[in-house]
Amino acid sequence: MSTNREIHLASRPQGWPTAENFRLVETEVPTPGAGQIVVRNRFMSVDPYMRGRMNDVKSYVPPFALDAPLDGGAIGEVVASEAEGFKPGDTVLHGLGWREYALLDARAARAVDPSLAPVSAYLSVLGMTGLTAYAGLLDVAEMKPGETVFVSGAAGAVGSMVGQIAKLRGAARVVGSAGSAAKVERLKALGFDAAFDYHDGPVYEQLKAAAPDGVDVYFDNVGSDHLEAAIGAMNLHGRAAICGMIAQYNSTEPPAAPRNLALVIGKRLTLRGFLVGDHGHLREQFVQEMAGWLRDDKISYDETVVEGIENAPQAFLGVLRGENLGKMLVRV
Amino acid sequence: MSTNREIHLASRPQGWPTAENFRLVETEVPTPGAGQIVVRNRFMSVDPYMRGRMNDVKSYVPPFALDAPLDGGAIGEVVASEAEGFKPGDTVLHGLGWREYALLDARAARAVDPSLAPVSAYLSVLGMTGLTAYAGLLDVAEMKPGETVFVSGAAGAVGSMVGQIAKLRGAARVVGSAGSAAKVERLKALGFDAAFDYHDGPVYEQLKAAAPDGVDVYFDNVGSDHLEAAIGAMNLHGRAAICGMIAQYNSTEPPAAPRNLALVIGKRLTLRGFLVGDHGHLREQFVQEMAGWLRDDKISYDETVVEGIENAPQAFLGVLRGENLGKMLVRV
Repeated sequence: MSTNREIHLASRPQGWPTAENFRLVETEVPTPGAGQIVVRNRFMSVDPYMRGRMNDVKSYVPPFALDAPLDGGAIGEVVASEAEGFKPGDTVLHGLGWREYALLDARAARAVDPSLAPVSAYLSVLGMTGLTAYAGLLDVAEMKPGETVFVSGAAGAVGSMVGQIAKLRGAARVVGSAGSAAKVERLKALGFDAAFDYHDGPVYEQLKAAAPDGVDVYFDNVGSDHLEAAIGAMNLHGRAAICGMIAQYNSTEPPAAPRNLALVIGKRLTLRGFLVGDHGHLREQFVQEMAGWLRDDKISYDETVVEGIENAPQAFLGVLRGENLGKMLVRV
Repeated sequence: MSTNREIHLASRPQGWPTAENFRLVETEVPTPGAGQIVVRNRFMSVDPYMRGRMNDVKSYVPPFALDAPLDGGAIGEVVASEAEGFKPGDTVLHGLGWREYALLDARAARAVDPSLAPVSAYLSVLGMTGLTAYAGLLDVAEMKPGETVFVSGAAGAVGSMVGQIAKLRGAARVVGSAGSAAKVERLKALGFDAAFDYHDGPVYEQLKAAAPDGVDVYFDNVGSDHLEAAIGAMNLHGRAAICGMIAQYNSTEPPAAPRNLALVIGKRLTLRGFLVGDHGHLREQFVQEMAGWLRDDKISYDETVVEGIENAPQAFLGVLRGENLGKMLVRV
């Protein structure tokens, strides 16, 4: 096969993205130059944060270019190499998803052992997703044993890890919010002490019922009314790790919430935004600990796999609508 | 004189307080019981945070009771003592202002040396006000030499200390906002590198012009549009010490701002609310350092003194309207 298929950004979404914002483009399979490799991608990661990069605004990462392939975490096998240390057949993790064949500098690829875990796990539980949960909970929010943790978007890839890691690290109570009854059931099966569907009533009321003694640590994937509810329910000296605000990624209006931010003073709350990239120093410790939990069957992870690069835009729209359980992946 | 005059809370304000929410009440001068002292107050502190205690809501301090005297920081001389360690004529600092004569347990009073500084200074630069600035800037926001600091409400008692302490501790650039041209002039005289009147245009635009390389540390006394502007102007890994949100204390509507809170993620910002009471461990270090700066004439402080307990409600309304330069005090 000498054809490479990739997904381009055809236009910038206004509000919610649609299929028309994307375009499937056929190109040649690339040939590596000196120091480069070509990887046949097998799985690619689909993440809500990509929505921000579709806007033409300055941010911590540059916006996606129009009429160029999108990118994101991916794993696959080397099919051609002009770089020392990589040979065809090697399994590598890298950042050029959204295409069947990726051409990249060998320095931008990391070899992984496909015999240790299903290769998709390197994009989820053992990868950035797991490290995001681990670093946010333990490093950013400084969760301590005996505390009560609330995580929003809890049935998502990061959220479901946060809740389980919290329990494994000694949290007294873990509460999750999600967007369907099925997800709530899944959270309880994963060991959450309480979980609720945010459609069932005001988040604050449901959170207070689920955490009657208040919340010490909040892991925010949602923002908006969830953040407001968490601020309202938090105990003195509570800490929030702000990981994402999916509720407002597609909003064309500024968010109305949180309206109770002044409570941070009297309660001495800390709200701290973070990106996993700042916490690479934890990677080795994280991989050790997570591998142990997986080996001992102490942690479960869900994957929602969409088949085919041509369906990647639908997978992305789905993750924004919360159609995934756990990690949203595309099998390329 | 055997009459004691005190200010009671007559009714709870809805929105902005008015003179009708207060009542001047005449009582007997109290007599101390065992372990108690009676203090003739000379100065009392008037602080914006009191507004919150006038609402009947659960908070970090109980609300003021109706038909009972208000309270707050005060300094005066002991006129009667039934407590070991205190004798008439001693100057003491305590928490029962808003009355001419205060009856209190000796344990709730702290003797100070009136020969070291004007006694009013113990309520401002050498007291809670100064420590609030010091702790918020250095402990909560962890300001480092070479950084750019923005403080709102900069001509107030706390704000003017924040800016000066920042410069003395090596900030590269200090920017303040205030509510009049005269205050802006005063800030420049105090050594602020830039200052602006928030009435002159959008806070964000003025802040960007005053701090073209961005803000590393924000000391928030105002909230609302000031906090939103600071979040917008902050550099990666910026820290905000949230001390007060005077812009919304009298609002009957929830605040609309900050609408850009999602920026905390990409910029990895930390927003941290604090109360000075949590930072008592810094008091000795603070007093040492501040006394040295005062002795060397490196720091200036302003006081706005209103005469007479009967005018204390007006002083309080004035501080909410920003009529003070520096510390608002009542000479009792």
